[in-house]
Amino acid sequence: MDFKVQLLQRKSKIDKVIGEVFKDKNGLQKTVIEAMEYSIKAGGKRLRPVLLLEVCNILDGDIDYAMPFALAMEMIHTYSLIHDDLPAMDNDDYRRGKLTNHKVYGEGIAILAGDGLLNLAFETMLDSINNDPKLCNRGIKAMQIISKASGINGMIGGQVVDLEWEGKKIDIETLDFIHKHKTSALIEASINAGAILGGAEENQYLELQNYGRCIGLAFQIVDDILDEIGDEEKLGKKVGSDKSNEKSTYPSLYGIEKSKEIVSGLIENSLKSLEIFKEKAEFLRSLAKYLEVRDH
Amino acid sequence: MDFKVQLLQRKSKIDKVIGEVFKDKNGLQKTVIEAMEYSIKAGGKRLRPVLLLEVCNILDGDIDYAMPFALAMEMIHTYSLIHDDLPAMDNDDYRRGKLTNHKVYGEGIAILAGDGLLNLAFETMLDSINNDPKLCNRGIKAMQIISKASGINGMIGGQVVDLEWEGKKIDIETLDFIHKHKTSALIEASINAGAILGGAEENQYLELQNYGRCIGLAFQIVDDILDEIGDEEKLGKKVGSDKSNEKSTYPSLYGIEKSKEIVSGLIENSLKSLEIFKEKAEFLRSLAKYLEVRDH
Repeated sequence: MDFKVQLLQRKSKIDKVIGEVFKDKNGLQKTVIEAMEYSIKAGGKRLRPVLLLEVCNILDGDIDYAMPFALAMEMIHTYSLIHDDLPAMDNDDYRRGKLTNHKVYGEGIAILAGDGLLNLAFETMLDSINNDPKLCNRGIKAMQIISKASGINGMIGGQVVDLEWEGKKIDIETLDFIHKHKTSALIEASINAGAILGGAEENQYLELQNYGRCIGLAFQIVDDILDEIGDEEKLGKKVGSDKSNEKSTYPSLYGIEKSKEIVSGLIENSLKSLEIFKEKAEFLRSLAKYLEVRDH
Repeated sequence: MDFKVQLLQRKSKIDKVIGEVFKDKNGLQKTVIEAMEYSIKAGGKRLRPVLLLEVCNILDGDIDYAMPFALAMEMIHTYSLIHDDLPAMDNDDYRRGKLTNHKVYGEGIAILAGDGLLNLAFETMLDSINNDPKLCNRGIKAMQIISKASGINGMIGGQVVDLEWEGKKIDIETLDFIHKHKTSALIEASINAGAILGGAEENQYLELQNYGRCIGLAFQIVDDILDEIGDEEKLGKKVGSDKSNEKSTYPSLYGIEKSKEIVSGLIENSLKSLEIFKEKAEFLRSLAKYLEVRDH
């Protein structure tokens, strides 16, 4: 089957489950639930949950048990975008071609919607763990990986440094810190949590971890490249914003061609880590290659 | 021993453990850790951790195991204050006589410091669960109670309704919803989580749950009363802000005297629930009475 069809099928399955999470909006606090739903349903590739479920799948893990963890990854990702778009942070009016959360609901509700999604991510994982005590150890370990990746030594750490260095020239070490923490941490955590939930043996875990490190960084460099030479319509946002904000990026430090070479090297490296999984890893292989050539 | 000395001893023990959490501030992201530390160390009664540990204690539970959950309660409480003080929410410049987080670090860092504390609360509880697998079931259940209480069906739900009704006349049902969710939820969760961690039997759990419900609501009504007739110096903030914001409160709906009567009734009710614990519950009894007469 064509890779893009497979990707779409996986995405649809996740979208369906997301739709069910926000069905009940009857309480006095319904505005915040609407705001959370607005942003989590505002498009998105569902890359993190797709990765988590696929890694669990190639290890013959329990996909039903893993689904709440996949949802949690998307909730955490969405909350980070809502807070990142706020006037006090990146001050963006549009994301994926739609108004950002605070432009629709106001800043106060947007802050609370972000808080609500982070909190709900943990509630969702805990419910799953509580429902199936025999997988408790794997669940706790996966939740631990996810919580570290989203915290001050992970994603939040990256956002802080990104915020502090805005508009200033930065060196490659600082840029790598931001990329690794702000973007790659959640992508890597999706893969590592999926590996734990699938019951990976140590060597399998290490290979998957390397796959995650490579595609996580490659993903962000491609983002930087697309911001410079991408198609606004396909991206659903203005390009060139990094340049006009004088943001240091891979293209600004290395140029477009060299940046593309770095991406190719990372993808190649990621594919080597999949060799031990043979034909089972076909989808993950195609996904890595797709991340290199994606246009949005 | 005098109750106030006992309270101070418990508070000091918690302050000491909090001090150790934020020792390491060497990473590139150190600003956010400083900001988190600033607010969690900016005073506060440590009511929630004190309650959690004391409830666990009267049930002869493992206090070392419970400590990270107590810390988590204080982290969640602190994050909620940081976000609540933001310009887009209550827009407060001072809290407990000190500048609020965003006045010191700016709005962007304050948002991330709040996010960081919520996330760290879960990291902290998970580390504890992972360190002692034999208490895993209790730990998961306690974390579940805490996560529900801090989420959209708990504290965040209360904040949303509070924000939406700001400056409008509200009825007693809506005010009760706000009080119950915004303030009482975390106080109740501290008690209920402490009960689970201490291994409470069902009847013990139900009595403690009622104790929590009563003192949680009483605590907020006393806050409302203090905002009207309290001493600014002792409170560390301006009084009369509810009135000037035309905020509906117990005093505005019932008057001061009737509000005080309601508080007395709640405290009396809370004390009845402690009877089965006999002399072991002496501290919790004194604490309930203290909450009624506190001046800050």
